[in-house]
Amino acid sequence: MNILIIGAAGMIGRKLSCALAEAGRLGGRPIRRMTLADIVVPERPDFDGEIEAMAIDLSSADAAASLVASRPDVIFHLAAIVSGEAEADFEKGYRVNLDGTRSLFEAVRLAGAKRSYTPRIVFTSSIVVFGEPLPPVISDTHCLTPLTSYGTQKAIGELLLADYSRKGFFDGIGIRLPTISIRPGKPNKAASGFFSSILREPLIGEEAILPVSETVRHWFASPRAATRFLLHAATLDTGSLGQLRTLTMPGLSATVGDQIEALRRVAGDAATKLIRREPDEMIAAIIAGWPQSFDARRAEALGFRGETSFEEIIRVHIEDELENRVREHA
Amino acid sequence: MNILIIGAAGMIGRKLSCALAEAGRLGGRPIRRMTLADIVVPERPDFDGEIEAMAIDLSSADAAASLVASRPDVIFHLAAIVSGEAEADFEKGYRVNLDGTRSLFEAVRLAGAKRSYTPRIVFTSSIVVFGEPLPPVISDTHCLTPLTSYGTQKAIGELLLADYSRKGFFDGIGIRLPTISIRPGKPNKAASGFFSSILREPLIGEEAILPVSETVRHWFASPRAATRFLLHAATLDTGSLGQLRTLTMPGLSATVGDQIEALRRVAGDAATKLIRREPDEMIAAIIAGWPQSFDARRAEALGFRGETSFEEIIRVHIEDELENRVREHA
Repeated sequence: MNILIIGAAGMIGRKLSCALAEAGRLGGRPIRRMTLADIVVPERPDFDGEIEAMAIDLSSADAAASLVASRPDVIFHLAAIVSGEAEADFEKGYRVNLDGTRSLFEAVRLAGAKRSYTPRIVFTSSIVVFGEPLPPVISDTHCLTPLTSYGTQKAIGELLLADYSRKGFFDGIGIRLPTISIRPGKPNKAASGFFSSILREPLIGEEAILPVSETVRHWFASPRAATRFLLHAATLDTGSLGQLRTLTMPGLSATVGDQIEALRRVAGDAATKLIRREPDEMIAAIIAGWPQSFDARRAEALGFRGETSFEEIIRVHIEDELENRVREHA
Repeated sequence: MNILIIGAAGMIGRKLSCALAEAGRLGGRPIRRMTLADIVVPERPDFDGEIEAMAIDLSSADAAASLVASRPDVIFHLAAIVSGEAEADFEKGYRVNLDGTRSLFEAVRLAGAKRSYTPRIVFTSSIVVFGEPLPPVISDTHCLTPLTSYGTQKAIGELLLADYSRKGFFDGIGIRLPTISIRPGKPNKAASGFFSSILREPLIGEEAILPVSETVRHWFASPRAATRFLLHAATLDTGSLGQLRTLTMPGLSATVGDQIEALRRVAGDAATKLIRREPDEMIAAIIAGWPQSFDARRAEALGFRGETSFEEIIRVHIEDELENRVREHA
């Protein structure tokens, strides 16, 4: 098997590359070759087969054609300018998130016009394709009314994926990832950052800031679940998807209060005391427009599995990022 | 007022140009200048002000920039490769319907970057943005799952229209037109052609073929109503649209049997006897996937008015296309 990962230097891309390299197989077939591409050279995990890591801008001329020249069997397309940057730089967002995605799809179509070629393409979309009106629980057949350019670009990607798949140019599947928690690494300035940092920092004995009320509800999955979703999407039978080629992944609907309670159960009061309340009206206003819960029964019926409690999400983080140890507090 | 109509040579484009030229005003303001553009030179209606008619390919380089150079106050964007052709010629459909629309939006954005410019853009979308699953009555918040490349391109146009409007690059409104009946002119090979021809031909004493059952239900408006929708969309207050910038226009949900009964009431048995049943399974299968009825209350609340009976639709045709005369039958 020949596998291409575009966006392999990102957090999920790295975890996916490692998982594939470690397994050495996908869907029961041995992996012969992996190509890891991103705007910067991705890290190369230990791998027995052929592995190439390269820096490439998907939106530049011929980039997509050169990436599909080796005719990968599975293409993971994770590359994107993130929400905040796509909102601040309109042209860059459209160039990378729309034109980049379309060039990839076009490169595959044109390769297939020369000689039969129908790879699986796994496209990561996002729950921000849903904007207003937002019901308390959002189904896969809810309308796409994104409130950001990033959400618009992802929604367009979903539509293109469905049309190219319907025409038989490739076998596409889109997955809408929940908000990832606990994101490993340092605190960042994203509005959603606190959903991870209020757990991640206390687990290593550091203080974290909570800018919103404990009643705020949102939709979560761990990085490990996100990796699992991608692997499953790469091999499942797409025959039953019909024209709805993109699925909302199973997540956990939880409040900030639920997160804190789970932290208390796993790491005690010493940990929860490190969360400092510092209300920030701007962040609260942004979060107020975000979805709270989804009906992901369609994805579940197809075998996608998320987490069922925030304790599970915290334990995943402790196992995968903290070498199974929670720091002792004073 | 300076008005630009792109797609002015089409049936609706011609009626819109004539209506504007005749009124000489739009939303209470006098029209100083009209530009009529299409892939062929559009007919030029009698008009007291400045009028220009030109052949231009919207998807060619600089076409859009040259069209907006005079900074029209209102832009009607009706141009599109139709459904059958967009399905048969994938590249042409995307080039005109997606890239052409995007170039127009980009040209307006870039003109506004130089000097403040926020025109009203009226974009014609279509009910074929809705595919499967299709409930019996489809609301404005139903998901976009087009089953054709044309429908995909229109759905993407809707998303771009909403995002550019949200960013303040222009003041966009999209309208999803019902199937137009009675289309003037000659019978054509479109699968939907019989919805017009079974009325249009008998009204001039000619035979028409009905390829489907009388129980087939669909969603209709007259060409006069379509023109009225465009004029209203050009002037209404878009403040209440929110992110749902595209509206399904009010139509009449009617069966083929309803159409025939209305023809009988208007033109008698002599007319309905000219309808010859010739079942065509291929056409029946295509039509089976089409929507039957919509909830257009949102558009109605904003002042859009369709027809309420098929007799009204037939009388509109007799007034507008047959100089108010129905041919006498033997």
